[in-house]
Amino acid sequence: MTCVSFLTDYGLADGFVAACHGVILRTVPTARIIDITHLVPPGDVRRAATVLVQTVGSLPRGVHLAVVDPGVGTARRAVALRAAGGDLVGPDNGLLIAAAERLGGVQAAVTLPVPAGTPATFHGRDVFAPAAAELAGGTELAALGAPLDPATLVRLPVPHARLRPDGVLEAEVLLVDTFGNVQLAAAGPLLADAGLRPPARVRLWAVVPDAGRSGGAPGDEAGDEAEGAGTDPVTRVTELAVGVTFASVQPGELVLYVDAAGMAALAVRDGDAARALAVAPADRLAICRVGDDA
Amino acid sequence: MTCVSFLTDYGLADGFVAACHGVILRTVPTARIIDITHLVPPGDVRRAATVLVQTVGSLPRGVHLAVVDPGVGTARRAVALRAAGGDLVGPDNGLLIAAAERLGGVQAAVTLPVPAGTPATFHGRDVFAPAAAELAGGTELAALGAPLDPATLVRLPVPHARLRPDGVLEAEVLLVDTFGNVQLAAAGPLLADAGLRPPARVRLWAVVPDAGRSGGAPGDEAGDEAEGAGTDPVTRVTELAVGVTFASVQPGELVLYVDAAGMAALAVRDGDAARALAVAPADRLAICRVGDDA
Amino acid sequence: MTCVSFLTDYGLADGFVAACHGVILRTVPTARIIDITHLVPPGDVRRAATVLVQTVGSLPRGVHLAVVDPGVGTARRAVALRAAGGDLVGPDNGLLIAAAERLGGVQAAVTLPVPAGTPATFHGRDVFAPAAAELAGGTELAALGAPLDPATLVRLPVPHARLRPDGVLEAEVLLVDTFGNVQLAAAGPLLADAGLRPPARVRLWAVVPDAGRSGGAPGDEAGDEAEGAGTDPVTRVTELAVGVTFASVQPGELVLYVDAAGMAALAVRDGDAARALAVAPADRLAICRVGDDA
Repeated sequence: MTCVSFLTDYGLADGFVAACHGVILRTVPTARIIDITHLVPPGDVRRAATVLVQTVGSLPRGVHLAVVDPGVGTARRAVALRAAGGDLVGPDNGLLIAAAERLGGVQAAVTLPVPAGTPATFHGRDVFAPAAAELAGGTELAALGAPLDPATLVRLPVPHARLRPDGVLEAEVLLVDTFGNVQLAAAGPLLADAGLRPPARVRLWAVVPDAGRSGGAPGDEAGDEAEGAGTDPVTRVTELAVGVTFASVQPGELVLYVDAAGMAALAVRDGDAARALAVAPADRLAICRVGDDA
Repeated sequence: MTCVSFLTDYGLADGFVAACHGVILRTVPTARIIDITHLVPPGDVRRAATVLVQTVGSLPRGVHLAVVDPGVGTARRAVALRAAGGDLVGPDNGLLIAAAERLGGVQAAVTLPVPAGTPATFHGRDVFAPAAAELAGGTELAALGAPLDPATLVRLPVPHARLRPDGVLEAEVLLVDTFGNVQLAAAGPLLADAGLRPPARVRLWAVVPDAGRSGGAPGDEAGDEAEGAGTDPVTRVTELAVGVTFASVQPGELVLYVDAAGMAALAVRDGDAARALAVAPADRLAICRVGDDA
Repeated sequence: MTCVSFLTDYGLADGFVAACHGVILRTVPTARIIDITHLVPPGDVRRAATVLVQTVGSLPRGVHLAVVDPGVGTARRAVALRAAGGDLVGPDNGLLIAAAERLGGVQAAVTLPVPAGTPATFHGRDVFAPAAAELAGGTELAALGAPLDPATLVRLPVPHARLRPDGVLEAEVLLVDTFGNVQLAAAGPLLADAGLRPPARVRLWAVVPDAGRSGGAPGDEAGDEAEGAGTDPVTRVTELAVGVTFASVQPGELVLYVDAAGMAALAVRDGDAARALAVAPADRLAICRVGDDA
């Protein structure tokens, strides 16, 4: 009984997801399909890739079908990848790579052919789901298409995260979840390296993206000089606690913690941190220990 | 392992969908249920019928359970239909017919009895899902209820689409999908008949529904005279390209194409055509080749 | 083939639900998972408990996994319960009790241990789903954790509903569903006891919650005196019919009926009663027969 995970931006109001389920089950009636999400904002490959990589580790070994594909019908390649821990199928736009690496790295890859006469707007149903079904049914990867060099696969930019020499952690917002929790691109160990462990209190501020990598703390003259970034258009500044879970702080308060995906994150207990902070994915934040910045 | 597809307007925030799944699986533990959608706007039988007919062709043979049923608990009939390609269960309000025809046409039909004491507001759980489960488990259609004459089944009005003698294609908006793509009631071949093939450019305008079937192109004197519709309250006029997929045009631009259901459709690349055009289902649009209308 | 039902406030836009599915299926590949809903408003334990209790009766015998858990990572207990009709797994915050009682009452209960090093924010994936999977796979309840006294389980307040001596039915709003139907905390028999059967007409008014249990009908001097509540800040007053289903009244009209969960409810035919009445869960309403209140 093979598992096929399935992630798209198709939404849940049309029959698109079901059509793909149907295509898979017509080929492999015993396949188990796990819907990861179909509510990726239209065309948001970055969010889709982030959700995928943070979910595959919990899924049974199998085939991972992901289709967020603004370039459907163009020359962008349709691909199937084999990793040590599973297969992946989707467009060659960076969506699959991080998950493939989480599953052990790409060992082989093929370009999926698009049969003549295939409608140009629904490769999920007509190209990707059939390929995923073939893999779920035991067809060899090599039988699905012409081999391609994994080094040529499209990659997304690496999100910004770094610990500055002055001890300030900079990271962009990677993802805002259903609860409004704000996941940063900084992995937990980077937070620890910055000395940001409970029960520290920290100062958080937003760096205007155009200001580049060297946003200084407000009033942080030494830091600014070290980085030569004294003119950073720093905006909001907030103080908050480092904790281990939402309830480490009082209702309505902000907390910095390492989330269940192992990433630094900001939450408001019983609230919505993204709204409270007015931040969105790709916004850049800076964090330092209170006392380290004066 | 029998498949049961399932479409409702129950939403996903309550336990209604799960209750029906439960009823099916208690009768047929091995049934596979494919949720088509449960986000049909409340009572929107027309949208439900459209999504159903455009999805069933991709699903495994089985039972199709669809419940969008504003008349639940009234004298409207509960029915089960047998088509060459599968069975359908739901209210007799036009929801199932198009799908039944897509599956080869209604060969037999029965009226499902409503047992005394059944709550009058949740026939999905209490009448339709049990019938679908029986069919999925192998019960004969005839055993489920009294036979009815398929000719008496309720039908929805046929959506307007026609190619006018002056070469203008008129069609109402059939469906707006998750992406804001605007599907017209005109099938692809009608588009071809109108000469609307890539790389033609076309003119698109909205005809106020009350103006009837003869909306003329703006400034289209000949056409207007031919149709006697010179006073049509034409509103927006837009020019756009005919393409094969979203990326046939530049980001933000409109494109007319044949969608994956084989219908004429309008999209904005990386955008929302329904919002850009300010159109909704049942609005009537007219399209002609640029050059044909002057 | 064991069924696991699954209810959370995780939403459908992230990979949280899928991660839990994955955890279950990695342990019990043949398990059938029925998603009840994942759109409980964040942290709304009361709504979650209501949806759960009204759905479990339609589900196959099995394990019911429910995670609405604002106290995740704190000292609140993680529990597994055994009832005559199935097992339940979730946080000890009142979410599971009503469903357990619907399934025959709690026969045994254990506290689930949280392994050292478990992230403090995703017990659904790391504590609850693994326990549900163990139960689905046949592990004995007692093997999952230390026994606890069911009498110590956290309970939610009982929602207010009573038939006053003056014949007025008071009940708070228990739940508003997808359609805007307003379910009251009063069970159907209480409605019958109040003489509120079709085709009676009734008067409905909102009692400001702070006014307590004795809201009098507007102009109901005798009732007010009997209850000593002549100063109740009564707000809206509406007259409506008692019926058996939505279509018992004309489109746009209100109807009082016994819903498919056996509870008194208010609906607007082809409309949204919660919006029409401007009521929300926990609001308190009073109802009496027209003619009984003058």
